[in-house]
Amino acid sequence: MKTISILLLISISIISTLHSQIESEIDAFKIKDIYTETLENNRAYKWLGELCSHGHRQSGSHTANRAQDYLLSLMSTMKFDTLYTQECEVAFWDRGIMPEEVSILSADNRRISLDCIALGNSVGTDARTLSADVVEVHSLDEVDELGESLRSKIVFYNRPMDPTKIRTFSAYGGAVDQRVFGADRAAKYGAVAVLVRSMTTSHDDVPHTGVNIYNEGTNPIPAIAISTNSANLLSNTLKLNPKLKVELKADCKQMENRTSYNLIGEIKGSENPEDIILVGGHVDSWDVGTGAHDDGAGCAHSLDAIATLIAIGYKPKKTWRCVLFANEENGLKGGLKYAEISNNNEEYHLAAIESDAGGFTPRGFSFTATDSVYKELIANIEAFSDLLEPYGLSFNVGGAGADINPLKSQNGLLFGFRPDSQRYFDYHHTQEDTFDKVNMRELQLGVGAIASLVYLIDKYGLHP
Amino acid sequence: MKTISILLLISISIISTLHSQIESEIDAFKIKDIYTETLENNRAYKWLGELCSHGHRQSGSHTANRAQDYLLSLMSTMKFDTLYTQECEVAFWDRGIMPEEVSILSADNRRISLDCIALGNSVGTDARTLSADVVEVHSLDEVDELGESLRSKIVFYNRPMDPTKIRTFSAYGGAVDQRVFGADRAAKYGAVAVLVRSMTTSHDDVPHTGVNIYNEGTNPIPAIAISTNSANLLSNTLKLNPKLKVELKADCKQMENRTSYNLIGEIKGSENPEDIILVGGHVDSWDVGTGAHDDGAGCAHSLDAIATLIAIGYKPKKTWRCVLFANEENGLKGGLKYAEISNNNEEYHLAAIESDAGGFTPRGFSFTATDSVYKELIANIEAFSDLLEPYGLSFNVGGAGADINPLKSQNGLLFGFRPDSQRYFDYHHTQEDTFDKVNMRELQLGVGAIASLVYLIDKYGLHP
Repeated sequence: MKTISILLLISISIISTLHSQIESEIDAFKIKDIYTETLENNRAYKWLGELCSHGHRQSGSHTANRAQDYLLSLMSTMKFDTLYTQECEVAFWDRGIMPEEVSILSADNRRISLDCIALGNSVGTDARTLSADVVEVHSLDEVDELGESLRSKIVFYNRPMDPTKIRTFSAYGGAVDQRVFGADRAAKYGAVAVLVRSMTTSHDDVPHTGVNIYNEGTNPIPAIAISTNSANLLSNTLKLNPKLKVELKADCKQMENRTSYNLIGEIKGSENPEDIILVGGHVDSWDVGTGAHDDGAGCAHSLDAIATLIAIGYKPKKTWRCVLFANEENGLKGGLKYAEISNNNEEYHLAAIESDAGGFTPRGFSFTATDSVYKELIANIEAFSDLLEPYGLSFNVGGAGADINPLKSQNGLLFGFRPDSQRYFDYHHTQEDTFDKVNMRELQLGVGAIASLVYLIDKYGLHP
Repeated sequence: MKTISILLLISISIISTLHSQIESEIDAFKIKDIYTETLENNRAYKWLGELCSHGHRQSGSHTANRAQDYLLSLMSTMKFDTLYTQECEVAFWDRGIMPEEVSILSADNRRISLDCIALGNSVGTDARTLSADVVEVHSLDEVDELGESLRSKIVFYNRPMDPTKIRTFSAYGGAVDQRVFGADRAAKYGAVAVLVRSMTTSHDDVPHTGVNIYNEGTNPIPAIAISTNSANLLSNTLKLNPKLKVELKADCKQMENRTSYNLIGEIKGSENPEDIILVGGHVDSWDVGTGAHDDGAGCAHSLDAIATLIAIGYKPKKTWRCVLFANEENGLKGGLKYAEISNNNEEYHLAAIESDAGGFTPRGFSFTATDSVYKELIANIEAFSDLLEPYGLSFNVGGAGADINPLKSQNGLLFGFRPDSQRYFDYHHTQEDTFDKVNMRELQLGVGAIASLVYLIDKYGLHP
């Protein structure tokens, strides 16, 4: 007991020392200013509504290009010193005729339609209807075990996201291998298609798309998600009639690559311009819904975080960059291109903050860094945490964001904005991810959180 | 610095000592069981849907009676030892012809309708249309200052809820005096009616009702809420034309008192039956919407908290009572009656937990007690807090709940379940407070939180 207490005493002394460097009272007022400004003006919400009015933003699509034009034009009205784009080549996948078709063919030839959607990058069925027996599995390992017995079968992945994981992203992480690698694994053993239970915590009729990856050398087979209700129906029907057949038809195919762009606005710092603080989200979405939460919210958060700091009259000491990335969903070409150019220019991102978890009530930030600089960079986090706690925010170790992750090698600290995660997977990658699912107040609180963190890092840096 | 550190050391040592009494590992497993059970079975969500299907639940209304019958019948299927009701007399107010009418009459006699709803207990306009000049004010004090100049005028209370208060209940607390006491205060100076800006953080066309109180001896005048958009419109129009008239018409009136009931299910404790742990919410709602968040959610939380503990096989050591109160919205007669009977029976409520803040993602519990027992009763809270922290829950000092507050004199600890508050006032007391605004997962997480707290108090008590 005593040892523990002494260790706690030491760690508290360290924290107290750091606290004394921070001008807590001034900062508390400034953070209140930030929140007041953003909650009274609601710019992010207005901008997100306008962004979503352009339709979906699948990388390289006409509607995505229009949305990027809108964003550039919006950014040109903000007080960036510099506004520029970075071109990148992106894969373009076309869903073709919608909706896809999946149905259960029962013993008496009655047909039960399932709610379905092809997974991104999936091959189609070449205008034919594919029909086969179905084998239900719950993991990639089980597919390996069943091996050659899956030849000519449709493999049905039906492991749900674990509802008892309180942070739904953990549940997603524990189930999404079926969607990403399920088709590839089943193809290895001669399966003719896969059906995948939708990645969601809700129980409904809405199917969820998302990326599916074939390894090189795999003979690709169609990969189609079905809603959770349809998955339960199929599973229950299979129990009664293991010999039922499923028919499916999908028109999707990979097309020629297209061009997309990262959109970048920058304000040079007055004292340490070589230290970059990035805030960003990704512009692209899947081709259903309008990517309101994923990740229109992140773009709106990032733009309004900068706009809010400008509006309260705060002048950057470090360089601020707002980066709206291309192509997070199916290739990450935007994030990779940004890091490549940044590395070539020998830049240093002291901090990068990505918002890519929706526009819900903020809970805090997760953070990550390379082992070599980790301890050094988290010196001020405890003090920041005290200042942000009244706003319901806390910090925890964890992943930051797919788009900014390639910047990790620059040895800065990467942050992921972490909102409440309970409703995120109700909408994720579906036709339901639309502007009406966004609550104005919840969205604007996210702006307050991100802008406050930018302010604190800009003022104090991260090094002790 | 040293003094602070030593004090911290001492307080940490105390906490550590308490921790050692708690079987952290066993409890962590048990709490996981609770969450697993409730998140997999979703009873609260199902029950809340059924409850809301009966319509609104204004105290004493036919639809409220039907809903109480449904709840009693549901409770009879649960494993309560005893199930009983407590009769109480409740005021019954009738809105009459809907919707009420409020319109701006402009200089050229054009009429602009405002979105409006009479406040609870308001008198009507006796089948006449009332027309008068309007004076915009922002506080009760301003009404006192304007005094007699308000004679024959309509007083328009237009102080918004402060959007920058992060906990929206604080913003509500800072604005709701206009709604509760505004009519009474204006009547004192001869005003003929009041309009009140709706109590909400959202910017929309939905008017919010809620209780309005006339002091004894006041000559009551009509009190009508208008939506935030309508309030902005009226305010802006008044700036252009301070002489505009507003016309209003309302048919509402106070009726004969009616009878309502508290619904109570009890399971006797095996070790300390004299220590009662209460979980509850209130059945009644306003007469618009179906009281899904206010407070159907609280009833569903309370019932499912007990059902979940039963389902995992936990046996009460103390006595558990699930109390579904009558008449919280306009009289609190249920809560008062319950405390009166309990006091007469010389009962002791060791803990009472009320859920009356909606069915949103849980953030924790606020708690309160009389000064004399406060320190003694919070001895275990820190240890409970450590066990509940992985579920996003924390404890803070604060109000508990209107229905259980009369139990404070029994010297137990009163808890208010505290969910995320950002969306609560979007729906509060409106036609929009319906079942479709409730997210299943968010609701069920509330059950997990409340059931876990009941479990910990039942097992460890609150005294050191």
